[in-house]
This record gives sequence, structure tokens and C-alpha cells, in this order.
Amino acid sequence: MEPGIRRYKKEFEYSYTLGPFPTFELLESRPDLALEVCVSPTFNDKEKLFALCAEKNVPCRLDQKTLDRISNKEVAYAACKFRKFESKLAADRPHVMLVNPSDMGNLGTIERTMLAFGVRDLAIVEPCADPFNPKAVRASMGALFKLRVHVYPDFESYRREFPERDLFPFMLDGHEVIEVDRCPHSSCWTLIFGNEASGLPASFQTVGRSIFIPQGPDVDSLNLAVSAAIGLYTFTRTTRS
Amino acid sequence: MEPGIRRYKKEFEYSYTLGPFPTFELLESRPDLALEVCVSPTFNDKEKLFALCAEKNVPCRLDQKTLDRISNKEVAYAACKFRKFESKLAADRPHVMLVNPSDMGNLGTIERTMLAFGVRDLAIVEPCADPFNPKAVRASMGALFKLRVHVYPDFESYRREFPERDLFPFMLDGHEVIEVDRCPHSSCWTLIFGNEASGLPASFQTVGRSIFIPQGPDVDSLNLAVSAAIGLYTFTRTTRS
Repeated sequence: MEPGIRRYKKEFEYSYTLGPFPTFELLESRPDLALEVCVSPTFNDKEKLFALCAEKNVPCRLDQKTLDRISNKEVAYAACKFRKFESKLAADRPHVMLVNPSDMGNLGTIERTMLAFGVRDLAIVEPCADPFNPKAVRASMGALFKLRVHVYPDFESYRREFPERDLFPFMLDGHEVIEVDRCPHSSCWTLIFGNEASGLPASFQTVGRSIFIPQGPDVDSLNLAVSAAIGLYTFTRTTRS
Repeated sequence: MEPGIRRYKKEFEYSYTLGPFPTFELLESRPDLALEVCVSPTFNDKEKLFALCAEKNVPCRLDQKTLDRISNKEVAYAACKFRKFESKLAADRPHVMLVNPSDMGNLGTIERTMLAFGVRDLAIVEPCADPFNPKAVRASMGALFKLRVHVYPDFESYRREFPERDLFPFMLDGHEVIEVDRCPHSSCWTLIFGNEASGLPASFQTVGRSIFIPQGPDVDSLNLAVSAAIGLYTFTRTTRS
């Protein structure tokens, strides 16, 4: 990363992986996106990282100063500058849609959970937290690099592109309760989750079969990443007789 | 909060709720713990908060300066100083045990998820993140005040107190795979989860029936709060025929 390179901003056409774990994940999964790697002289596994960079043809150098500058006061032993990307979602695969997610930690955690359950297509509706912010990338543990992610200006743009899907908005006043052994069947589903504080707008009641995760009256709602995890686990694991 | 009161430290015998939501939750659930409330003159709902404090006999005053001092650079419209507490866990109820959790956000999120699924007893094994740190309290959305929480110096202390329980350690090399419709049956269970980075020590394989949450090979592991949510959902919702 050339001298003068600055801390990440949303308008950049590139971003950084901060930390060895997402850096290794990027180099393994999407070396085509990797531009250059900086390594701390104090990083224990630097030989391994240099070797992987050589194998993938990605420039790599020791550069503590740049790491300190871009890592926002946290210690990062390695970082990779990478090109941002956008993907077309696969029409015949399950999707998750996040409408106006605001927390980068949640965004990354949901990506990691999707990948764990084999769901690789993520639609995000603006306004939203930036999925390429290094904090979101780190929270995803590099899962971002194994997913197809597309940001839509609004829900209608998504629906025009994928008019045939079964939509399941998760809402506190959802009509159908999912249970571990009773979950709607669909071969082409999109699970839809709203903003952390406000949930989905009421209008989503009419766009599909709205779902409620059974929960007691003592809490206001479940955490967004927790709701998405339970939705994903139930929809991907329920066996059909 | 008297002049000179300082930002939270772990060794204090009191802590703070930061933000209106956990402050209201504390006053509603455990007014016996509440010592005094500070409110920002700019808080929209201050009349409601003053009225609740009057009803619960908790001193309350406008005090922006103290809020700024204790809120660690975030905006907090209200805060309540409260006595820390420790509870005896209920022997005949389901438990969650967290062994060496290090992230206060995860701790709070898990408390919130427990409460949503009606599980009110939480054992935490040291070393661990401080469950009374205002960040953990905020992440719990006040769920902390509706739970019984006990911190143990080690796992053996817990086992001596509760020798008869069915223990289910969640491990990446767990022997039994839980499925949405196939989950071990027990009337007196403890779900056990390890540290975010290292999981549970291998020795936990022998303390109970170890559990694996089915997940693909593309991720290292699930997020701790996500694992706990899936465990709680499955154990509390699976119907028995």
C-alpha cells in the first residue's frame, strides 16, 4: 500500500481486510480481488502469509506504519487492500435479504452464519451499513469473500429482478409461527429481515408469508443476527417427510 | 449521582445502565437495585422517566454533566446507578453456562436471547467479560435484570453445586448433531458454550453429551451468540411426541 494511503472511507473503490484471518480468507477465496498485502514484523505467521501471497501473485511487504494508519487504533498484524465487488445473485438459490441493516457487526455475523448454513446469496436494501467497511469484513471472518452480495436501492428493484420467489418477511406481527419442526416449504425462498431498531415496514405483510419466531413477552425482540440465524437454521435444516 | 462520580470500573460495587431502554427495564424489573437516575435535559421522554422514578421511590435529576462523564463518549439520554447483584440459580430450571466469554456484546445478546426463550438461569465461568459492565448491560437490553446470574471461579464449583444436571457442551467435535427435529431430551439441562476464539477445552467431551450444530466446512465456526441462540431455540422448542 503506497505511502499516503488513507484510512477507509465508504466512497473508496477498494477496502481492507484487517487482521490475519480475513486476509488469509481473501487470498484463498478471491485472490483476483487482492491488490497488496501489508504484514507486521511482529506477526508470528508471516512466512506463511508471504508464501501464500507469492503463490497467488499478490505483492506483500512488511509495513507496520501503514497497518497502524489504516487500522483505526486496533492492533492488526496483517491487512490486504482489495477491490470492492458486486455480484449478481443466483436466481435458483436461497437468498437472505437485509432491509436497512445499520450495524456492521450484525452484517458480518449474518454473512458468516449464511455461509455456515450453505446460503450464499445476500441482497441488501439501502440505506444500509457498508458491507465493505473493514469492521463488517472482520465481523464476517472473511465470509464476505465466499458470498454473492448485491446492494439494491430499494425493495422493488430486487422484486423486479426476481419476480418469482417465495418471500418470507420476518416480523414481530408475522402471521406464521416457525417451529423447529414446522416451517414453510419452498424451493426458492428469500428470508427478509428489517432494521435493528425498527424491523420491517408494515407494508411487508403483503409481500409474502410473514413469519414470527416464537419468543416470550419479556423481551422487545431478538437481536437481528440471532433472528437471521434461527431463520436460516430452520429453513435449511427442517427435513421434509 | 453525586459530583465526582467516576466512569465504571470492574471493581465498583455498582454499575450504570446507559441509555433509556435499560434504565426503564431496570426500574420496572428491579427497582430494589436502583440507586439514582440521571436524565438529559434533551431527552424527549423525561416526564415519563421522572414519573416512574417517583413511583418506584428512586431519586432522579437532570444532570447532563454526569451523563457525559460516565457514558464513554456515546450519547446517553439517561442512566441509572445500580447495585450489582448475584443470584442463586434455580436447581429445577434449564441453565446456560458460558465458559470464559470474552465479548461483552455477546454476553448481553445471549442474555437477551435466553429471556426470549424463557431460560432465566445463567452460569458464567471465570475468567470472563464483566456482565455488569455498562456495555454488556446495554447489549442485554436490560435482560440482565430479569435473569439469575452467577459467576463461578471454575467449572467444578458449578458441578459441586448442581451435581445432578444433564450437561450439553457445544463443541466443534461434538458427538451428537442437533437437528431442528431431533434434539436430546432432558428435563434438567445445562447448555455449555466456550470462549469465542478457543471454544471449550477438550476435557468437556467427558462431562456430558457433547453437541455439534450442523454447519458447512466453509466457516471456521459460528459466532458464539449465534450458537447459543440455535441451542436455546432447539432445546426449548423441540416438541416431544
